[in-house]
Amino acid sequence: MSHWNRVVIIGVGLLGGSIAMALKQRGLANCVAGVGRNAQRLQQARAAGMIDETYTDIEPAALDADLVIACTPVQQIAADILSATRWAKPSTLFTDVGSTKAAIISELEGKISRGTFVGSHPLAGSEKSGFENARADLFENRLTLVTPSENTPNQATEHTKALWNSLGAQVREMSPPQHDAVLAVTSHLPHLIASALAANTPPDHLDFVAAGWRDCTRIAAGDVELWCQILRENRRPVLQAVENFAKVLHSWQTALENDQPEQILSLLESGKQIRDQAVGN
Amino acid sequence: MSHWNRVVIIGVGLLGGSIAMALKQRGLANCVAGVGRNAQRLQQARAAGMIDETYTDIEPAALDADLVIACTPVQQIAADILSATRWAKPSTLFTDVGSTKAAIISELEGKISRGTFVGSHPLAGSEKSGFENARADLFENRLTLVTPSENTPNQATEHTKALWNSLGAQVREMSPPQHDAVLAVTSHLPHLIASALAANTPPDHLDFVAAGWRDCTRIAAGDVELWCQILRENRRPVLQAVENFAKVLHSWQTALENDQPEQILSLLESGKQIRDQAVGN
Repeated sequence: MSHWNRVVIIGVGLLGGSIAMALKQRGLANCVAGVGRNAQRLQQARAAGMIDETYTDIEPAALDADLVIACTPVQQIAADILSATRWAKPSTLFTDVGSTKAAIISELEGKISRGTFVGSHPLAGSEKSGFENARADLFENRLTLVTPSENTPNQATEHTKALWNSLGAQVREMSPPQHDAVLAVTSHLPHLIASALAANTPPDHLDFVAAGWRDCTRIAAGDVELWCQILRENRRPVLQAVENFAKVLHSWQTALENDQPEQILSLLESGKQIRDQAVGN
Repeated sequence: MSHWNRVVIIGVGLLGGSIAMALKQRGLANCVAGVGRNAQRLQQARAAGMIDETYTDIEPAALDADLVIACTPVQQIAADILSATRWAKPSTLFTDVGSTKAAIISELEGKISRGTFVGSHPLAGSEKSGFENARADLFENRLTLVTPSENTPNQATEHTKALWNSLGAQVREMSPPQHDAVLAVTSHLPHLIASALAANTPPDHLDFVAAGWRDCTRIAAGDVELWCQILRENRRPVLQAVENFAKVLHSWQTALENDQPEQILSLLESGKQIRDQAVGN
């Protein structure tokens, strides 16, 4: 069970807001400070009881912090963490919720003078954004990946795992490159494919889409700026995933071109088998 | 408003069962006969009040029928309709619920000696199957496409449209090839892509899939035999759709390979724009 005196959340959106709510509801923090660019929205989050203090600058917020969680877009996380370290304590734990890990961690490696950073990624996103959609139970029984590098002290890794456990999450440890390769396949490729499938549909066909199209394209509605950053940060593993996917697609083309029922059936069966194996149909 | 004395449903599964239930609940038929291979399951559907009579052969069931609806797998529909025409009346209306239309209609063209066939396709499938999942409201406010050929008498087309309207569906008319080209993009391609995306995921990555992967791959759990038939029957339009999709995928590969933020953003925006336009997010 982890308990914190002063927690700073940089970026009070869906994830940051949900962490704040969960910390408060579970009595895990004495004070939760929120940092954001928009003072008015921060006041709204404070009025909603989500955070106790509001800041538009990271440094003063991070003074005396025991825990700092960067919930900003992935390309901003390393810079935000570095800002926070300036006035932090040697004992401060830094973590984040970014969807990519290797780039952030290599940007930070060797540059943190005070405190320790351990990367995190809760698999609990949504195509919705903003603190209005935040929920204290967002992480409950969902998986959070914690990604120490070779140089991360064990104790900091354990504290980070305890944090997520205390928010209700299940926790798995992975190396940053392993995380990025897995997520390229399980999250970034599906986003790219959903987007391509939507983009490939002529507007005058939209009256004729049924539940399948809607399911397949749902995540294409997500924030384009955020996803552009995620896909760029992780572009090598994503390219590899696209290449593998294109090979499956090519097998499909060959099977259809030659009207090969056994091959088509076998392709459909491979897909169904994996789908049926996945937890929580 | 259409009312029928004797309706025959060939294939009492999700769609056939739902039609039977809707006809009875709305008082649109005096007698609904179900035809199937499995006498025991037909008795169960009868015991559930879904159908009034059960048959394992099409010909005797179709005797005196006013309306015959083939709800069997697409590659079987034309043969089933031809069996039903043998003992039918000159006034009998034949239709179906098949996901492809041109192949079925060209197989039947000029071969129906008694009665008239008009193709239909209710956009109301599900990855669930079997009459246990049937619902009287399955077609309510959902679209059904009615696909007369050049030789279909207007009156038969109007009767078919009235049938679906009376089951609660909205109806749109399309030519069979137009139907197949549109559905290749809005239904068959998404199925193929969902299957390929699932098949492309290594089993040991399945613990790390989140809501996006699950949404994108949901339909890959569908009946592989049925989908093999649909994709083969419609393979030319499907191949065209796959080819167009592969071009979008190739643009993605180029944009990522060259790390072009504007190009990546523009691809994501095209997808989001179409997705946001689609009805019923």
